[in-house]
Amino acid sequence: MKIQKVNLQKKFGMLREHWSPRIVGELNESYVKVVRLKGEFLWHHHELEDELFLVLKGRLLIRLRDQELWLEEGEFVIIPKGVEHLPVAHEEVHVMLLEPKSTVNTGSAQSERSVPDQWI
Amino acid sequence: MKIQKVNLQKKFGMLREHWSPRIVGELNESYVKVVRLKGEFLWHHHELEDELFLVLKGRLLIRLRDQELWLEEGEFVIIPKGVEHLPVAHEEVHVMLLEPKSTVNTGSAQSERSVPDQWI
Repeated sequence: MKIQKVNLQKKFGMLREHWSPRIVGELNESYVKVVRLKGEFLWHHHELEDELFLVLKGRLLIRLRDQELWLEEGEFVIIPKGVEHLPVAHEEVHVMLLEPKSTVNTGSAQSERSVPDQWI
Repeated sequence: MKIQKVNLQKKFGMLREHWSPRIVGELNESYVKVVRLKGEFLWHHHELEDELFLVLKGRLLIRLRDQELWLEEGEFVIIPKGVEHLPVAHEEVHVMLLEPKSTVNTGSAQSERSVPDQWI
């Protein structure tokens, strides 16, 4: 079985919806995901999982309860487990995520915006 | 304690040596690292750890025993544990790595090219 490389741009080209992360790789019980963001998500935290956001296009605001982080292209942040966060994208943002397989996108906040695991 | 974002370009600006990965983040028992590659490394594998290579600048050849992978900017590959690989950079390449904290850069091949954990 051949090992396949992944071209991130091509994956974003296959992705239409906002706030619907899709899996593009797996390693060590974690998933690499791509997601298009636009607008405001919802406040949530992940009980057990640290989560990495790497911005590949655009500019992402991540609001925390006591600070704000603006991520530009080529910047990442790791939100430790338990820390409430609210991603906000005034314009469309392309993000690569890295998180354990157990992670639900809405974390502790189950809602109609929760998305099941899906590869692209 | 404030959560800090990481600007990958700035980290590469602080990095001089080739083949010396430096830690820039940690999550879920894994490290995010940056490394400048130039020339040929050595054949090795990681007994227990899958390893992600994301090319941020340049073009990286990863030779496997039965295939070759050319990674361009914005492309990544995950080398599963146990798979022998040889990274080759004809010109300088900037790479972001993701791997468990237990990972040694030379894997099973202990050599003078083994590098201890170090943050940048």
